[in-house]
Amino acid sequence: MTKLTEMKCVACNKDSPIVTDEEISELKPTIPDWELLEVDGINRLENSYRFGNFVDAMAFSIQVGIISEEEGHHPAILTEWGKVKISWWTHKIKGLHKNDFIMAAKTDQLFSEN
Amino acid sequence: MTKLTEMKCVACNKDSPIVTDEEISELKPTIPDWELLEVDGINRLENSYRFGNFVDAMAFSIQVGIISEEEGHHPAILTEWGKVKISWWTHKIKGLHKNDFIMAAKTDQLFSEN
Repeated sequence: MTKLTEMKCVACNKDSPIVTDEEISELKPTIPDWELLEVDGINRLENSYRFGNFVDAMAFSIQVGIISEEEGHHPAILTEWGKVKISWWTHKIKGLHKNDFIMAAKTDQLFSEN
Repeated sequence: MTKLTEMKCVACNKDSPIVTDEEISELKPTIPDWELLEVDGINRLENSYRFGNFVDAMAFSIQVGIISEEEGHHPAILTEWGKVKISWWTHKIKGLHKNDFIMAAKTDQLFSEN
């Protein structure tokens, strides 16, 4: 399987496929730090990252913002002093698309490069 | 009363005073758009702002980050496509300090200048 970090997001519409349970069982182990959880009935991927101060946390949030704008797929970014929580899901399909796993992997890669 | 936007945050420690009900009834009307709510037993001030795209939302989050770093008091900033939610409270006193009302007013001012 091509590494998620080497893939690009595809454009989504409301008929784009939600990932199947089989796909989740294949994709999830490649992003082990991410939690798969349900918020308001919608599955999402969530992960938190720690930093030594506010500025480093904000800088990471901005980096995530930049790659999300490049890929045309945007997360929820919760920035606090020393902490950033990223949540990925696909609004148009009210659930998880393969794009979300790609972006989760790219978020981890970004953090590891810091 | 001096306008909140003209005030500066004071340094806080765990013995700094939580705002009294009387102070809240005086301060809250000056920031009418903010919601006073309790999360995990801690009072906070919360307000959401709308934008036409992701970049404008992220830019506002960065601006709020800059003034919070300047004042040495940091909020939770939730950035999504077209939407930013700001939450102010004071971690050290597990509640609301006058600083939070000052920063809420300054956040509104920042948004109105955009």
